[in-house]
Amino acid sequence: MSFVSETTFHVRYLETDAQGVVNHAHYVAYLEEGRSSYIRQRGHSYAAMERAGHVLAVTDLQIHYHKAAVYDDRVTVRTWLGETRSRTLTFHYQILRTDSGEELVSGMTKHICLDRAGNVSRIPQEWQQWIE
Amino acid sequence: MSFVSETTFHVRYLETDAQGVVNHAHYVAYLEEGRSSYIRQRGHSYAAMERAGHVLAVTDLQIHYHKAAVYDDRVTVRTWLGETRSRTLTFHYQILRTDSGEELVSGMTKHICLDRAGNVSRIPQEWQQWIE
Amino acid sequence: MSFVSETTFHVRYLETDAQGVVNHAHYVAYLEEGRSSYIRQRGHSYAAMERAGHVLAVTDLQIHYHKAAVYDDRVTVRTWLGETRSRTLTFHYQILRTDSGEELVSGMTKHICLDRAGNVSRIPQEWQQWIE
Amino acid sequence: MSFVSETTFHVRYLETDAQGVVNHAHYVAYLEEGRSSYIRQRGHSYAAMERAGHVLAVTDLQIHYHKAAVYDDRVTVRTWLGETRSRTLTFHYQILRTDSGEELVSGMTKHICLDRAGNVSRIPQEWQQWIE
Repeated sequence: MSFVSETTFHVRYLETDAQGVVNHAHYVAYLEEGRSSYIRQRGHSYAAMERAGHVLAVTDLQIHYHKAAVYDDRVTVRTWLGETRSRTLTFHYQILRTDSGEELVSGMTKHICLDRAGNVSRIPQEWQQWIE
Repeated sequence: MSFVSETTFHVRYLETDAQGVVNHAHYVAYLEEGRSSYIRQRGHSYAAMERAGHVLAVTDLQIHYHKAAVYDDRVTVRTWLGETRSRTLTFHYQILRTDSGEELVSGMTKHICLDRAGNVSRIPQEWQQWIE
Repeated sequence: MSFVSETTFHVRYLETDAQGVVNHAHYVAYLEEGRSSYIRQRGHSYAAMERAGHVLAVTDLQIHYHKAAVYDDRVTVRTWLGETRSRTLTFHYQILRTDSGEELVSGMTKHICLDRAGNVSRIPQEWQQWIE
Repeated sequence: MSFVSETTFHVRYLETDAQGVVNHAHYVAYLEEGRSSYIRQRGHSYAAMERAGHVLAVTDLQIHYHKAAVYDDRVTVRTWLGETRSRTLTFHYQILRTDSGEELVSGMTKHICLDRAGNVSRIPQEWQQWIE
């Protein structure tokens, strides 16, 4: 099976809403945190990739919400790569309440590689190091 | 065809990211704005619904990103209802760059009705007024 | 007295927090909205300024919170210029609940002009048009 | 000298803006993270305090911006208590770039204790444990 990264952090107060739970919008930030962490744990840096002139733009986002987190919960984002092609790649995610292990959210983001001019580009060779 | 609401506003600077365009996460807020506006334009208020003891929790979110918006762009969110059942309903969205009419984003959110205790509940009778 | 801009919008649901009111952090976005609106109403565009190679970086922020807003409240941001110097300027703000006129927040941001390289720069001549 | 908490985390991509650096608004979230962490490190929980019926509403916010952080920077928030009275307390903050030790931001928030009904209240006895 492919590499799965894990990163754990606390829910911030401002991520809650008037329902008393984490607003659904903030899980998008949690997925991003999972993605950043995945790349770091593979020994690379998305920041370095951007400085080298390529970005991974998000083209699709899907989130399924199972249970709600509340302020101060610790949450763990598990992230792994799905289908990768020459110009696109897909990340999958699972967010758990760290202490109970309950699944809160599952999700997927699809990305396309763009160059500095905004044109679709092949994913550069050096990125292949962390994409099996 | 069903009722379609439209609401138009400017992109905020803090919604942009280091790629110079609106970060993909912020479109979730734009969808929410579309949804609030839809309910208002049907002559109702989501705030009043909550005070009456029911919430519409988000269970699924899907967004497809077509083109990017930048700071100070005017964007228009078009919102309409999809499938509605006794306990769930679905909103569909299209976000356009107001001045050019280009489609930036299309999306969907699915909701389930919960009572104050967090239990799944039938959508109350008075809500049916704005759900055909 | 100097020009005062006004812009009015609805509180978004995700701007609330578990206390049921707008989280204090989001008023910073409201001030930014006031500032953008101020510049637009003076017939200029902050986006155009940036494209011309200068930015107004925030160096100081002060907010005093008087009363809380809730979801779906309409809020009006009143914005005016304070002290302006060759390299810095100050905006003042007042946020009101539109319907009642109650003052919710008062605030101030101080800005310094930077060029593309990040060096402190004189505020360009053409910006002086909207700065008395 | 009083207790100083430290908490360290990475800048998220969506916290950057089109200037390529962390948008000034997001430091308010970093201060909140510092405050939550301070209370945790004193062996208490703000969540538990709220469940017991009291909140600490923010009445004043001041931030001075010295240097900018970028995506993937590690930042450390140092937090300590300032003046405390029977109904109010003040937190002070310093945010550093973890790797270089450079000061990015200094700030202050002032809080007032409210009960469930929103009335000003004495800070409860049990909170005094983490307030010298």
